[in-house]
Amino acid sequence: MNLILLSERDYIGANTVRLSDRRFQHVAGILRSSAGDVLSVGLLNGPVGQGTITRLAADALELVVVLDRQPPAPLPVTLLLALPRPKMLRRILFTAATMGVKKIYLMNAARVEKSFWKSPLLSEERLREQLMLGLEQAEDTLMPGVFLRPLFRPFAEDEVPGIAKGTLPLVAHPAAEESCPRDVSGRITLAIGPEGGFVPYEIECFIAEGFHSVSIGRRLLRVETVVPALLSRLC
Amino acid sequence: MNLILLSERDYIGANTVRLSDRRFQHVAGILRSSAGDVLSVGLLNGPVGQGTITRLAADALELVVVLDRQPPAPLPVTLLLALPRPKMLRRILFTAATMGVKKIYLMNAARVEKSFWKSPLLSEERLREQLMLGLEQAEDTLMPGVFLRPLFRPFAEDEVPGIAKGTLPLVAHPAAEESCPRDVSGRITLAIGPEGGFVPYEIECFIAEGFHSVSIGRRLLRVETVVPALLSRLC
Repeated sequence: MNLILLSERDYIGANTVRLSDRRFQHVAGILRSSAGDVLSVGLLNGPVGQGTITRLAADALELVVVLDRQPPAPLPVTLLLALPRPKMLRRILFTAATMGVKKIYLMNAARVEKSFWKSPLLSEERLREQLMLGLEQAEDTLMPGVFLRPLFRPFAEDEVPGIAKGTLPLVAHPAAEESCPRDVSGRITLAIGPEGGFVPYEIECFIAEGFHSVSIGRRLLRVETVVPALLSRLC
Repeated sequence: MNLILLSERDYIGANTVRLSDRRFQHVAGILRSSAGDVLSVGLLNGPVGQGTITRLAADALELVVVLDRQPPAPLPVTLLLALPRPKMLRRILFTAATMGVKKIYLMNAARVEKSFWKSPLLSEERLREQLMLGLEQAEDTLMPGVFLRPLFRPFAEDEVPGIAKGTLPLVAHPAAEESCPRDVSGRITLAIGPEGGFVPYEIECFIAEGFHSVSIGRRLLRVETVVPALLSRLC
């Protein structure tokens, strides 16, 4: 937790917040801060700045906050991600949030195991939890949107064209001959398949909608490696 | 496991191997292969190719192998990595091996917790296990070397200059003003600090030896994210 993320309901005065949940426990137990210490804070979907501890009790702390800077710029990438194995999904959401992705569609694909869609991790609350941890890591405040799309075809045919419009649309495909571009200016839509990749029909759907099928080499990477590798190469 | 990694002692004939360990279990239990199936195989530190299952018994399988291709090219990067938390180290070694890094120095730094050096994961056998998993993922056969350097100063002063010689030496530092280069040709030495970063004295040591202190933006990323993000950006 490099930044303490505040919400409107933490405020007990114009510039004073009171925390008693895991954020308090982190400050008291892990950072071992004391009154007078200055911490990085940010308002959810708002500015970032600093908070000075004015009171540290056994069950809560109070901070006077000055929020005077913008959070880091979002990454101009919309991610279309074949739903990964739940254990991996947690890490991937964390990574995507940390790197500044603000829109993530979790979509179905032939090689996505049906059981993945039943994971309790897909509840709004659990998704939000992972994204918050990612924001706190990156000192960001802008909560990404995550959208579940459990049917491939209606999503690919009805929604993807609108999402991709005005962006550079790319589908990651280890067998592609085109090399993934670098340092792209402008917005990007990036589709990443499941372990084992998208099946040929799915790749064809993307190509039919103007996507470029691109590769970063013949090595087969895990999805949790592909996400930071591609984002960092593209932006 | 996208490739079955063979060693010389698996051979029972000129082109025939016999497997009865976790590789056998993977083929029989997870891939559910049967006689006649063709699998990707590679010889440790040697060529890659295909193996055809000629016999699948309850406790072992035999393959006739044809190894006629080179493994993917190594990444021209030597990694100097402040020893991460053991849980993260596992994933980072896996990722580095998958992406093709062939030399990894695990070094000390002020913000490395002393207890990390006592992790059983640092035994030769356990390190090798993670690296093998990474190679199998990437269909690679060239085993990376991992070197433990539990003293910062002697390593930084006596060894690093020799390692960095003839390479582009970079130290990742979120506060750096210089942006990390992209698509570098030639060899690279890349130093990555612990969570919280290298301390100023350590950064100065690297700079005194000709390293460029570089950043990929103001977001603070976890080491396990920084490694694939930087490797993919540089190579």
